[in-house]
Amino acid sequence: MATTNIRHHNFPINSSYQISNHRTTIRAFQEVAHDTQKSSKKTTRLAESISNMLHLRIEKPAPMSLNNITSSLVHVEEKHNTPTLSPKEDISDKWRQIQGSSGWGDLLDPLHPCLRREILKYGEFAQATYDAFDFDSFSEYCGSCRFSRNNLFNKLGLDNHGYDVSKYIYAMSHVDVPQWLKKSHIMDSWSKDSNWMGYVAVSDDKESRRIGRRDIVVAWRGTVAPTEWYEDLQRKLEPIGEGEAKVEHGFLGIYKSKNESTRYNKSSASEQVIKAVKKLVNLYKERGEEVSVTITGHSLGGALAVLNAYETASLVPDVPITVVSFGAPRVGNIAFRDELHKKGVKTLRIVVKQDFVPRMPGIVLNESLQKFDDITGTLEWVYTHVGAELKLDVRASPYLKRGFNVLGYHSLETYLHLVDGFVSTKSSFRTMARRDVALVNKACDMLVEELRIPHFWYQMANKGLVCNNHGRWVKPKRDPEDVPSPTREGQHNVFHQIESNYQRA
Amino acid sequence: MATTNIRHHNFPINSSYQISNHRTTIRAFQEVAHDTQKSSKKTTRLAESISNMLHLRIEKPAPMSLNNITSSLVHVEEKHNTPTLSPKEDISDKWRQIQGSSGWGDLLDPLHPCLRREILKYGEFAQATYDAFDFDSFSEYCGSCRFSRNNLFNKLGLDNHGYDVSKYIYAMSHVDVPQWLKKSHIMDSWSKDSNWMGYVAVSDDKESRRIGRRDIVVAWRGTVAPTEWYEDLQRKLEPIGEGEAKVEHGFLGIYKSKNESTRYNKSSASEQVIKAVKKLVNLYKERGEEVSVTITGHSLGGALAVLNAYETASLVPDVPITVVSFGAPRVGNIAFRDELHKKGVKTLRIVVKQDFVPRMPGIVLNESLQKFDDITGTLEWVYTHVGAELKLDVRASPYLKRGFNVLGYHSLETYLHLVDGFVSTKSSFRTMARRDVALVNKACDMLVEELRIPHFWYQMANKGLVCNNHGRWVKPKRDPEDVPSPTREGQHNVFHQIESNYQRA
Repeated sequence: MATTNIRHHNFPINSSYQISNHRTTIRAFQEVAHDTQKSSKKTTRLAESISNMLHLRIEKPAPMSLNNITSSLVHVEEKHNTPTLSPKEDISDKWRQIQGSSGWGDLLDPLHPCLRREILKYGEFAQATYDAFDFDSFSEYCGSCRFSRNNLFNKLGLDNHGYDVSKYIYAMSHVDVPQWLKKSHIMDSWSKDSNWMGYVAVSDDKESRRIGRRDIVVAWRGTVAPTEWYEDLQRKLEPIGEGEAKVEHGFLGIYKSKNESTRYNKSSASEQVIKAVKKLVNLYKERGEEVSVTITGHSLGGALAVLNAYETASLVPDVPITVVSFGAPRVGNIAFRDELHKKGVKTLRIVVKQDFVPRMPGIVLNESLQKFDDITGTLEWVYTHVGAELKLDVRASPYLKRGFNVLGYHSLETYLHLVDGFVSTKSSFRTMARRDVALVNKACDMLVEELRIPHFWYQMANKGLVCNNHGRWVKPKRDPEDVPSPTREGQHNVFHQIESNYQRA
Repeated sequence: MATTNIRHHNFPINSSYQISNHRTTIRAFQEVAHDTQKSSKKTTRLAESISNMLHLRIEKPAPMSLNNITSSLVHVEEKHNTPTLSPKEDISDKWRQIQGSSGWGDLLDPLHPCLRREILKYGEFAQATYDAFDFDSFSEYCGSCRFSRNNLFNKLGLDNHGYDVSKYIYAMSHVDVPQWLKKSHIMDSWSKDSNWMGYVAVSDDKESRRIGRRDIVVAWRGTVAPTEWYEDLQRKLEPIGEGEAKVEHGFLGIYKSKNESTRYNKSSASEQVIKAVKKLVNLYKERGEEVSVTITGHSLGGALAVLNAYETASLVPDVPITVVSFGAPRVGNIAFRDELHKKGVKTLRIVVKQDFVPRMPGIVLNESLQKFDDITGTLEWVYTHVGAELKLDVRASPYLKRGFNVLGYHSLETYLHLVDGFVSTKSSFRTMARRDVALVNKACDMLVEELRIPHFWYQMANKGLVCNNHGRWVKPKRDPEDVPSPTREGQHNVFHQIESNYQRA
């Protein structure tokens, strides 16, 4: 059953054998950037097995001349003392187009600078769900957000986007995908069933003026990369809505699961978000404001964003809904795509050409569709991506290494770097790109060595241990303000937040 | 040539085949704690190959009762707010015995509390050479000490020992063991040839009064664990001194190498240390003080300490010389041991029973001595450990995991923890042991999970990157005071240091 046996283009008749073999193969990947020890080994294994399995031929471009790299690097050096963002422009007269009202047809190639900036904003909101997540299985708060919603943007340096967090989202899942949940080793932990899964935020008055409307953002946390269970999530379709639409069972499970006996999921992630969004939309509409809903996420988070958009369109009428997803896998069948379209949801999928996650689960099912009798609707898989696509190419950036790098290709920071540098499919990397290149290596090893940026550098000093007055290394108690609390996360806070917005304005 | 082929007790006739095969096998290990990504993989590989090769049977003690562990853990919890060291006792009337004047015969089992405290002090001096070393190959100062000698103890929290650093030691090596050197990727680095290899320190007036003499310490940096090149260092004997004494070629190379064209090794490590020690001894002797020289080191550092003691005894007469080594391999033949003894050098070797490094290179050579025609004097290997031995057992500590852990067994922090808990071979772990247990996991994964101490936790925030005013992640310039400088490390500083000691006193 060695992975190297899988060296044929078409899978054999015995599909169940093939699936289990495939699952054994795709188990390798890093789930979290913070656990780099394990991940490196796993990544290498995955790289090998995936390339065996998919017959991936790594396209090797002509090597860049050293002159090019050197001049780019000098450029980076100079940029150390420049701002990381271009000046903000007023987009109040064109926000509908930027949100995709006409399908982005003429804004993507070349990429409109104002759209680029907005994509990066939403991408950084998605990135925040990784950066703030407590991955430490020795922490009693493992699986929660490390900061309270009032501190989140400030702690991550995202204040400048001009949004306030209104609500945290928690999710659990069916018992059949338990590996998805990040769990504490500690008996007496904050929650046994739920994980922090994202947040709802609202643009403040200043930002709302600039962007021409009150923007409600939902940011969904994903997983850094797929593992065995990630494939599992995608192996069964389930109906959604009244018609023929079907979506993947596992994603829907995470989105919809709840249990009365839990602390954070007496209501499902879906219910939490819909309730918060509905209230916010109504509140601002009653005040006569234009309102938009923008739903973002990376990887699994991108899939949840699409489900969330579908449902929001059904339950929260008369508000423009836009999805900005990064490296998201397919979510549903053709009927689902059509319904989403009919409901007016605009979806912009940002995809890195070399990243295989957006090709999931099709990468397997595509080639042996008729074999999977137990999966309904597989014949429709091939076309079930929704909306417009912005396709990026790793080879476009002079800062990125060549060579197969599954983790690097899928990393959200790689996506954001490539968006920042993208001008058009025909032009080279944008010389005025100002986003900090070092961010790319936060949770992967993707930057050329000449940049001297350490690999997987996003890490806490001494893994969170601090030396106390007695010289003992201890894990400090979390700031009470940042300790998760089911009551504090409750609904009344949404209004409290809005009130304080108004007082500030 | 798979490693799993080596499954016989006696090596085959063709010794050269066997050696090269063996080298392939022992390549795995972690060299530095800071590069945990690579190391974890390597460690696992090594664990497997070593145990295959050596037919190591892991002794599995009866599992500890949960009650025991729990009560120990409660104990740890209570200790969070207690000092990490027992009160210091005056040992001015018994310092000669503690330094081994009578060979430690009656001080080791049970271990005399004052000796335990002194061993821990010297062990922490050795540990400092790891904790302060710049392992970052993207740093232009890779291979140097991260702090100047005036800041070293302060930055590492070792001020309380009452010593001042007088001199830094730098070493290079013969061209035939280049892998030993930790090198920067940066072209324009502080040094292309040398590594920081330790330091010379002197007890201050207060500590000198407590310990009954002016103590000159030489601390040698080792390597966290052996790799392929580590075996190489030990494959050839070379004469030392006038008689029959022979020591390992590789160790002597590191100790003795110099080159006029280098910045830091115009003189060898040996010359640097002997010069500094000689001057310090003479200076304090002229002032009528009692003086001692204590040389310490872990692993390779322990081997260098023995070489250094041999030479010091020849070149600096009439001063008691003591070696306190931790997990050190064998260094020389019987004649070398005898000469060392004759010169009056006292050597206390602290050894963890499960650690295989102190058994090197004997672990291989022992079993096929007559086959190695090219190695002179191999027949004497078996007996060439020198001095007294304090043998520790990993199984004695309720805080340490059971199960094979090559890296954990060899880690200096594991040694110090076991010294702290050692009462006698017949008694259980010392309940009053106060050293911070968390330190054990600095660079390994050795503590029971119940303690909730992260594995390999000794790490810098964001690998040394900091966010500048523009939101860019950059590597800050090293504090000018901590930038290595061949002139600043020069000889005149020794006296400068002494003067300032006097002014302070």
